Amino acid sequence: MSSLIPIAHLERFRETAASLIPQLIERREAPKSIIRFDPCATTYLRYKPSSLFPVEELESRLWGKGDEFIIDFESHRTGYFSFDLAGEGDSVGDAPTRLRLVFGEVPGDVVETLDPAKSKSWISTSWYPDEIINIDECPSSVNLPRRFAFRYVRVQVLCGSKSYKIRFLNVKATAISSTASLPPPYQTADDLLRRIDQTSVITLRDCMTTIFEDGPRRDRRLWLGDLRLQALANYYTFKNYDLVKRCLYLFAGFPREDGSVPAAIFERPVTRRAGDYILDYDVLFGVTVLDYVEASGDKATGHDLWQTVVNSTRNSVSSISADGRFTPNKNVWVFLDWQEGLDRTTGAHALIVFALKAVNQLASLLGYPAIHTDVITASSETLSSAFDAEKGVFVSGPKRQVSWASQAWIALADIVPPERAKVALVNAYNDPSATKAMTPYLFHYVTEAFARVGAKEEAMSLLLNYWGGMVQNGADTFWEAYDPADSMFSPYGDHLNNSYCHAWSCTPAYLLRSGLIPTGN
Amino acid sequence: MSSLIPIAHLERFRETAASLIPQLIERREAPKSIIRFDPCATTYLRYKPSSLFPVEELESRLWGKGDEFIIDFESHRTGYFSFDLAGEGDSVGDAPTRLRLVFGEVPGDVVETLDPAKSKSWISTSWYPDEIINIDECPSSVNLPRRFAFRYVRVQVLCGSKSYKIRFLNVKATAISSTASLPPPYQTADDLLRRIDQTSVITLRDCMTTIFEDGPRRDRRLWLGDLRLQALANYYTFKNYDLVKRCLYLFAGFPREDGSVPAAIFERPVTRRAGDYILDYDVLFGVTVLDYVEASGDKATGHDLWQTVVNSTRNSVSSISADGRFTPNKNVWVFLDWQEGLDRTTGAHALIVFALKAVNQLASLLGYPAIHTDVITASSETLSSAFDAEKGVFVSGPKRQVSWASQAWIALADIVPPERAKVALVNAYNDPSATKAMTPYLFHYVTEAFARVGAKEEAMSLLLNYWGGMVQNGADTFWEAYDPADSMFSPYGDHLNNSYCHAWSCTPAYLLRSGLIPTGN
Repeated sequence: MSSLIPIAHLERFRETAASLIPQLIERREAPKSIIRFDPCATTYLRYKPSSLFPVEELESRLWGKGDEFIIDFESHRTGYFSFDLAGEGDSVGDAPTRLRLVFGEVPGDVVETLDPAKSKSWISTSWYPDEIINIDECPSSVNLPRRFAFRYVRVQVLCGSKSYKIRFLNVKATAISSTASLPPPYQTADDLLRRIDQTSVITLRDCMTTIFEDGPRRDRRLWLGDLRLQALANYYTFKNYDLVKRCLYLFAGFPREDGSVPAAIFERPVTRRAGDYILDYDVLFGVTVLDYVEASGDKATGHDLWQTVVNSTRNSVSSISADGRFTPNKNVWVFLDWQEGLDRTTGAHALIVFALKAVNQLASLLGYPAIHTDVITASSETLSSAFDAEKGVFVSGPKRQVSWASQAWIALADIVPPERAKVALVNAYNDPSATKAMTPYLFHYVTEAFARVGAKEEAMSLLLNYWGGMVQNGADTFWEAYDPADSMFSPYGDHLNNSYCHAWSCTPAYLLRSGLIPTGN
Repeated sequence: MSSLIPIAHLERFRETAASLIPQLIERREAPKSIIRFDPCATTYLRYKPSSLFPVEELESRLWGKGDEFIIDFESHRTGYFSFDLAGEGDSVGDAPTRLRLVFGEVPGDVVETLDPAKSKSWISTSWYPDEIINIDECPSSVNLPRRFAFRYVRVQVLCGSKSYKIRFLNVKATAISSTASLPPPYQTADDLLRRIDQTSVITLRDCMTTIFEDGPRRDRRLWLGDLRLQALANYYTFKNYDLVKRCLYLFAGFPREDGSVPAAIFERPVTRRAGDYILDYDVLFGVTVLDYVEASGDKATGHDLWQTVVNSTRNSVSSISADGRFTPNKNVWVFLDWQEGLDRTTGAHALIVFALKAVNQLASLLGYPAIHTDVITASSETLSSAFDAEKGVFVSGPKRQVSWASQAWIALADIVPPERAKVALVNAYNDPSATKAMTPYLFHYVTEAFARVGAKEEAMSLLLNYWGGMVQNGADTFWEAYDPADSMFSPYGDHLNNSYCHAWSCTPAYLLRSGLIPTGN
C-alpha cells in the first residue's frame, strides 16, 4: 500500500516515544491500620473490617506458623511492597520463613481463596495478586520485585522456624506514578460529587506510569480505547501532555502490516504492538490525536501523525459499502463494550462516523482536505433510517436490537439533531428490555451522549448513580466493571480477576471539570 | 572465668576464619533426561522413572496451564537453577506465567504433596524445596536466587496466558562447591565398594561450600559433630585443609559465654554462633583439632586453638564426679544419635574419655602437660564396671540399657582391651533387643569401633549393608537417615523434610581410603 509509512519514519516515531519516557515519581507510604475482615451481608463489598490491633504495635508483634494479618494502607496505589524481617528467640534464622502475601484492591481479594485451578476465569489467573516467598535469612530486607495495585496486603506466615518468631519492621509501600501531585480538588458543595471526582483522579493517577495503562492490577498495557478516555481526563487534571504524546507515537511507531493501528502496545520486555486488533479502537486514533492537538495546541504532532490518522480510518471505511452499509469482516473484533449479546452494527457504524468527522476536524485544523466525506454522507443516511418510529429508538442488526450503545454513538456522531438523539437515548434508557451498558467504558459514552444532547439531568443522574454508586459502595478507585446488584459480577467469569482501578472508568473528572455536566458552581 | 579468651583474640580468630573463605567453583550442567515417575511397589524409593520425551526436544516443546514435566540431571548437586522463558502465539507476554518448581534429591520430593499445613514434621516445613514464581515478562531470563540441593526439578505450569504457550530454553543447573575436581577413584575390584566410596565423595563435595555444611537441603549450618566426620573424609579425598582450618577458627571465634564451644555456627546473614549447645559436640572440638594437626602438620593452629580446646573440655569434665560418675545437667543436650529412648549415660561418658585422651595426645604433640588425667582414670574405672558379665555387654543408666552406642564409645575410648570391647560390640550387635543406631552418624562410630577393635569383617559387613544398602536402593548421595525397612522413615516426623545428602553420612571414603576397613587391595 503506497500510504504505508516508511520504516525510517516509524523508527523516528519510536525514538520520539522513547524520548518522552517520564521519570516515575515515588511516594513512600506506611501502613495505616492492621485489620481483619468478617463477612457482612449488608455491605456491598461483602466484608466488614475491624481493627486487629493498633498499627503502632505492628513492629513489636511476633508471628509464627499459621499466623496472619491484613495491612490497610487506607488508599489505593500502584507500586511496590517492602519490609524488614527480624527474629526473636533461640537460633534466629535457623530455618527459612515462608510467607504468602496477597495484594488487594478490594476486601474480597485478601479474604477469598485465590485458586487458579478452581477459577472459572477465561482470562489468565496468573494475574492473581498473590506471591509465596521463601526468605532464607533472618534478619533480612525484603523488597518484592513485582509491582502490584493495592490498598490491602494480607500477610500469612505459611511456615517458619520452631525456634524463633518473626517480626515485621519498616513495612512500607512505594507507590509510583508519572504524576507528582494531585490537581486542585474539584470545587463543589456536593460531597458525593467531590468524592466521585477525587476517586476519578486517583484512578487516573494509578494508571499513569511510563504509559497510560488500562489497569495496574492486570494487563497493564496501553490500549487505544482506554487511552482516549484517560487523555481526556488528563487534560482537565494532571495536564501531562507529553505522556499522551508518547502514547500516540507508540501507536504510530508500531502500526500493523496493513498500516492500521493495533489495539494495544506492550512496553516490556521490548516495546512492540500486541496481536490484538479492534476495529473501533483503530478508528478512534484520529479522535485521540484531535483531542490532543486541541488540548495541547501542539499542531506539529498533528502533522507528524497525519498519515497514521489517515491509515487508521482505512479498515473502517472499507467495511462500509458505497450505499452506506456497514458490514465488518466476520473475524474482526468490534468492541464497544463487553456486554454479551450486544449487536454492534449501528453503534460501531455511528462510532466510525463520529471518528471520521473528528478526523476532518483535525484535517481542517491542520489545513488538509477533508477525507471520506462520501462515506460520512452515505453512512449518515443509512444510520438515520435505522430509527424505529414506533419505539422511538435507533435499532441495530437483523433483530432490530434496542441498545444504549446504538443511541449513544448516534448521538455522539451527530447523525440526527440533538433533540431527536435525546429522545432516542431517553427511550432506550427507560426501556427495561434494552441492551444496557456493561462496563464504565460504554457507561462513559452513554453519559457523555446525554450531556452532549442537552440531557444534563440524565447525565448527572447517571454520574451519581453509577460512579457515585461505586463510591458509596466502597470504591477507592473506579472499577473495571460494576453491577450495582452483584458485587461478584465479572466480564471474565471470575470477580477475583477483575481490575478495581481501571483507566476507562476515570472519566467523571473529565465530565465534571470540562463543564459537560454542569453542577452550578 | 580466667581462662576465657580475650575478645581481641576472638576477633583475630574471626579474621583468620574470614581470610580462609574459599572461592566457590561453579559447574554448569544441562538436563540429562525428561521423565515422569509412577508408583512402584518393588522399588525402595517408591517410584519408577520413565522417559517423557527425549531431552533434545525440550526446547521445542510448548507448555500451557496444567502441564508439567520432571527434569532429571541424573546426579546430585548443590546449586542454582535457571532458564529462559520464551513464548509462541498471539500476544506473547500478555499475562504472567506462574510456575511451581520443586527441587528433588529423591523421587518422592517431586511426586508427593509438599503441604506445610498437613505436615507432621516437628522441624520447619519452610525447608520444603519448592517455589512458586510469577514471571511478568516473556521472553524472560529466570535465575532463581535461592540455592537448592537437587537431582530432579519438577516444573509445573500453574497458570499462563490463554493467548500464547511457553517454551523453556537454556535450562541449566549451576552447581557450586569449594572443591574443584573429584579425587582419583578408590581402587577396588568390588563394584559396590567403588560406588559406596564414590557416593561418599559426592556427598562430601555437595556439603562443601564456604563451610562444611551438615546438609545442603536443610539447615546448611556448620555443626561440630558433622565437621569432625567431614574433615576425616576430606583428609583422604579432597585434602582441603584450609576449609577445616576455617571451620575450626569459626568455632573458636564464637565461643559461648562460659568458654565452651557451640554446637553450630551460622554463616549468614552475619557469622555468629547458633543457640544450640551439645555436650558431646563441645568435647569433640579437641578431637577435631587433633585430627587436623595430624593430617595437615599445622602445629601453629594447634597452639593457637589450645586454650579453646582446654575450654571445650570443661563442661564435660564438670559433669563427672571425683569418683568418676557422669551426671550431666538435666537441661543439657547430649546427642550421640537421634535414636529415641537411647540411654546416653555410658555412651556419652565413654565419648568424653575418648575426647580427653585425644586432647592429651594433642597436648603431647604440642608440648603441653596432660590435663584431666584424674577424670580419665576415675571414669575408666566406672565405665569398666558398667560391664554386665551375664549379657557380655556394657550397660547404661538405671535400667541397664544395652545399646550399640555404649559399646561403640567404650571401644573407641579404649576403656578395656580391644578383644573385650569387640566381644561386647558383637554381643550387642547380635542382640535383637539392643537399642540400635538410627542415623549414619552413630552408624559411623559403630563401624569405626568394629574396625578399631579388629572386627574387620563386621565393619565391612556394616559398610556393605548400611551404606551399600543406600547405594543399591538408589542413593546418589548418602542420606541423613536410612531405615532399610522403611523408605519413609524420618527422625523429624516427615520424610519430605529429610536431607538426602548429609555430611555425617559421608565417612565410607574415610573408612576405606584410610585402610581402617581393608579391602585387600
